[in-house]
Amino acid sequence: MADTKIRLYVEQPLGEGQTIPLTREQAHYLFGVMRRGVGDTLAVFNGRDGEWRAEVREAGKRGGTLDAVEQTAPQCDPPDLWLLFAPIKKARTDFIVEKATEMGAARIMPVQTEFTNSERIRQDRLQAHAVEAAEQCGGTFVPDVSDLQKLDRLLADWPEDRQLMFCDEALAGPGETLGQAGGGKWAILIGPEGGFSEAERARLHALPFAHAVSLGPRILRADTAAVAALTVWQQALGDWA
Amino acid sequence: MADTKIRLYVEQPLGEGQTIPLTREQAHYLFGVMRRGVGDTLAVFNGRDGEWRAEVREAGKRGGTLDAVEQTAPQCDPPDLWLLFAPIKKARTDFIVEKATEMGAARIMPVQTEFTNSERIRQDRLQAHAVEAAEQCGGTFVPDVSDLQKLDRLLADWPEDRQLMFCDEALAGPGETLGQAGGGKWAILIGPEGGFSEAERARLHALPFAHAVSLGPRILRADTAAVAALTVWQQALGDWA
Repeated sequence: MADTKIRLYVEQPLGEGQTIPLTREQAHYLFGVMRRGVGDTLAVFNGRDGEWRAEVREAGKRGGTLDAVEQTAPQCDPPDLWLLFAPIKKARTDFIVEKATEMGAARIMPVQTEFTNSERIRQDRLQAHAVEAAEQCGGTFVPDVSDLQKLDRLLADWPEDRQLMFCDEALAGPGETLGQAGGGKWAILIGPEGGFSEAERARLHALPFAHAVSLGPRILRADTAAVAALTVWQQALGDWA
Repeated sequence: MADTKIRLYVEQPLGEGQTIPLTREQAHYLFGVMRRGVGDTLAVFNGRDGEWRAEVREAGKRGGTLDAVEQTAPQCDPPDLWLLFAPIKKARTDFIVEKATEMGAARIMPVQTEFTNSERIRQDRLQAHAVEAAEQCGGTFVPDVSDLQKLDRLLADWPEDRQLMFCDEALAGPGETLGQAGGGKWAILIGPEGGFSEAERARLHALPFAHAVSLGPRILRADTAAVAALTVWQQALGDWA
């Protein structure tokens, strides 16, 4: 039974004839939940070697193995784009990670701003969300989710060759035109639900690598703003063109 | 205590000195949850008369009244844009309604396509979500949420002066440029998670008022696609410019 709708992220290198051991969770999903067995095929990817068709060789309750058969899609990496956001309520933070993966961010970085409530995040849980979103969206890339960092420290050590688009709710008018700023390495910064502090806003506007952009006349929630900002960037400079 | 962070949608006309009766739910929220009382101020809007500062005149457990004091923002209607989408799982349908309100859709229309699972929706619950989203996003307008309609019937009776942007996952390349199609009345159609059927896709491409647009190389979930599509439209033809 061939079912390309099942896509699994694996950690092993993928190549013709490569054997892929399954984790206990993957075996449970594939053989228990999805009722697949020996000889069935599915799609696998590891974030580096494209997508492969794989066939089940051994199926057990606690594990199993697949054989990689042939490459079905080349590796396709997103643009070199970071998404920085201030974590919010659990469900919405999960959504931001899912959406950033679908929208093609290369790295997802939770940041602490002056008005961020979160003291810590569950990096492992958010990384697992990124894997699941990549499995669902048909991509071959999984963005890295970083641990929580302080925004002011991140800006102090900012790499000089990376531009930053930030979304300023207080901005009247459309803000800067990204196309003129040019491609290359970028990051998008989404503020917390309470907005940036006055000191943060002044600092951001003064940074030579920062570009203020407006997301319209209504106030967007952080998860909505993340998708809207990624759309603006992908259309102007990314892989949507 | 002035707190502009509290915003309530009310149904009464708003004007200087106008008395506004509160529903039981609003009284519970305002006096019970938010601990406000007589003399406190908040913002109210009704979707027609802009935003007003109102003062609590009577506060009870089951009701109360406000006095409208002065207009604090003019009425601001979104562009004449409908969002058509195929309902999906409950939580994600709620999200689409919330996001469409924030992003400035004038009307939200759940539609049944060939691959839509939903037979019915809770229109009243979705409308309440739109009200809540309008309260949160600082807007003065609440989009109407329609009851579930069949897409094929809706297209058969389509108003000839309204253009339709639909998001085609199977499209290679960026699709049409919206700017060239011009402003005026529009609708956006987001397909169901399983995509459009071949018959639906062929019909959509053949419609003289329809414009196919791509949302990038990855497959987006319906709620992500709704925000991305609204961003594309608002940037090209809407009130973000």
